[in-house]
Amino acid sequence: MDKTSSFSIQKGKPIRCKAALCRKAGEALVMEEIQVDPPQAYEVRIKIICTSLCHTDVTFWKLDSGPLARFPRILGHESVGLVESIGEHVDGFKQGDVVLPVFHPNCEECKDCKSSKSNWCARYANDSISNTRRYGMASRFKDSTGEDIHHFLFVSSFSEYTVVDIAHLVKISPDIPVQKAALLSCGVSTGVGAAWKVANVEEGSTVAVFGLGAVGLAVAEGARLRGAAKIIGVDLNPDKFELGKKFGFTDFVNPTLCGEKKVSEVIKEMTGGGVDYSFECVGLPSILSEAFISTRTGSGKTVMLGMGKHAAPISLGSFDLLSGRTICGSLFGGLKSKLDIPVLVDHYLKKELNLDSFITHELKFQEINKAFELLEEGKSLRCIIWMDK
Amino acid sequence: MDKTSSFSIQKGKPIRCKAALCRKAGEALVMEEIQVDPPQAYEVRIKIICTSLCHTDVTFWKLDSGPLARFPRILGHESVGLVESIGEHVDGFKQGDVVLPVFHPNCEECKDCKSSKSNWCARYANDSISNTRRYGMASRFKDSTGEDIHHFLFVSSFSEYTVVDIAHLVKISPDIPVQKAALLSCGVSTGVGAAWKVANVEEGSTVAVFGLGAVGLAVAEGARLRGAAKIIGVDLNPDKFELGKKFGFTDFVNPTLCGEKKVSEVIKEMTGGGVDYSFECVGLPSILSEAFISTRTGSGKTVMLGMGKHAAPISLGSFDLLSGRTICGSLFGGLKSKLDIPVLVDHYLKKELNLDSFITHELKFQEINKAFELLEEGKSLRCIIWMDK
Repeated sequence: MDKTSSFSIQKGKPIRCKAALCRKAGEALVMEEIQVDPPQAYEVRIKIICTSLCHTDVTFWKLDSGPLARFPRILGHESVGLVESIGEHVDGFKQGDVVLPVFHPNCEECKDCKSSKSNWCARYANDSISNTRRYGMASRFKDSTGEDIHHFLFVSSFSEYTVVDIAHLVKISPDIPVQKAALLSCGVSTGVGAAWKVANVEEGSTVAVFGLGAVGLAVAEGARLRGAAKIIGVDLNPDKFELGKKFGFTDFVNPTLCGEKKVSEVIKEMTGGGVDYSFECVGLPSILSEAFISTRTGSGKTVMLGMGKHAAPISLGSFDLLSGRTICGSLFGGLKSKLDIPVLVDHYLKKELNLDSFITHELKFQEINKAFELLEEGKSLRCIIWMDK
Repeated sequence: MDKTSSFSIQKGKPIRCKAALCRKAGEALVMEEIQVDPPQAYEVRIKIICTSLCHTDVTFWKLDSGPLARFPRILGHESVGLVESIGEHVDGFKQGDVVLPVFHPNCEECKDCKSSKSNWCARYANDSISNTRRYGMASRFKDSTGEDIHHFLFVSSFSEYTVVDIAHLVKISPDIPVQKAALLSCGVSTGVGAAWKVANVEEGSTVAVFGLGAVGLAVAEGARLRGAAKIIGVDLNPDKFELGKKFGFTDFVNPTLCGEKKVSEVIKEMTGGGVDYSFECVGLPSILSEAFISTRTGSGKTVMLGMGKHAAPISLGSFDLLSGRTICGSLFGGLKSKLDIPVLVDHYLKKELNLDSFITHELKFQEINKAFELLEEGKSLRCIIWMDK
């Protein structure tokens, strides 16, 4: 127990509930009874309704060394919940509100949160180590022996209850089905945001997406809604191609079927010189380089959305860059959660944004390890895990 | 003599005049009498009034291997001239017009010339090898023995007369002094364009410029005119600092005086987290990497303006990019010559754009080798070489 929380006023009582704990890297999550402390100032305690599983959960589940590998831990960062109680200085949230926790902070007060050009909250976004946003390593979770349990990405949604800082919380319309809304807390928003806010894809343009996981499909969905004329999907798995059509893909390239040609050469032939926009959704520098040279000389723009766990440097050809190309990266698709997620919800409610097709599986909370298997085997896009079922 | 020019209709007669020939890499230019053929279709023959010397001339003067090293050659690509005669199918130019030849093509008809997002003429910009734009290796220059002389960047202004394709020619107002206008055909436009069109620097923003040659100073001038709040110059040569103030630099960093700190760390301290825009005007990948991480996380934008002759790959940190940074390159500052140079001329005539301070030396044509010495020694920014003096 750190000093900060010891002198905070407790507005409520601890809750005992079930959580799926990751006790050791790569080992099956264990369903345990834990204690969830009341929210402190600027925090909200949430009853999770449903959560989904993203590749980042799997990456951190497997991570076995370095300062980011911490156990025991409650993973999970895509979810929707109901406000159970609020701490001091919490405005804008009340018991019963439907809320979306988001891993990427949005304090709304710093220079960057106030700028239209950035979603990199200057106050908080550089800290990805802490358990709680304003309280450092202080945790709101304890196991049955009283040991602290680590948080994950300031969300930790693989628990019936969690505590989230208001900088990570968005109130959403109760009109949207919760399992659809959960998708907006990470992967889908990242893809749609990359197409809309980072690349600013326009009508009639050409697009290539490398990697047809949920993020890549969401990029296509964003490009489709912007009226892109050609959306080319690149993936080694041919099963992804049929699925991709639901999200607007018009053409597909399977790198294993390109023969002597590089994927970028094939894309240049398909588009008369290269796409206007390319998106790397795999997290491999070699694919990023290929995505980069797939764009049109003079105006091509490449958006990096993924990063491998080894964070290998990116290598680009000098002349490829000098000849008028742009490359940029973003977290969370350049979106500010509090501003932009309600906009995405609106697009869903107007039946414009396709969220339904992302959900390929639904499981009960006690089946959570099955969700890991499905994602690892490439069988699921998004698996919804219902806490109360 | 290639086939193309042998069946072209000759509208005029050859002109005999003086040119400064580069006969061998790195050796002093030689003043010789040459023959300049009449312009063919879509070409204009120009009487050069004055020319200036840019680092690219020096690079190609020294280049002693590869397909771009060709001799004998007439270098020079910053100049202003008068139309002497026109070939067939030349609209918009007539004898006596004041014109600016530009190395970067602008056919005005291709997809990219018609797009607002590109200045990379799809029809012509990928060919930097040919002597004449539409006629391949056909040359309009011969030496006294009848041997073809190579063109340079489709301009070759180190000659009393030259022949330029209309895709490389801009008619300008006769109100601007020619020696000031000459600066707009390469370096100064590249810098101002990078600030205005590529980066789109806005009022109150912070800027860092790496390398205070003419291009770097022009970037600052562009940023100053856009109302940037802080313009930081980075250069090893302290003499550049005093000069830089004339172009809007507000702060200076000399890398040799940073001690243990990296330049990017110093810039981050000076700006509370990094500049909004950084510009690399040296042409070294290591400096580009430093310029890149000098920008603000979440929104920083880096523009690459220079490239070393070895075109070494660029290396960027994965997370530095993923955390919301952008890097882009451009030739000729993203400008379309025919559209944008007249705008820059207007800004000069309205006494907004400072061109005068770029001219540090003026020489007679026969003193042209002195201009190379001055630039190589870092003593000149731009040296105007008058053909008739």
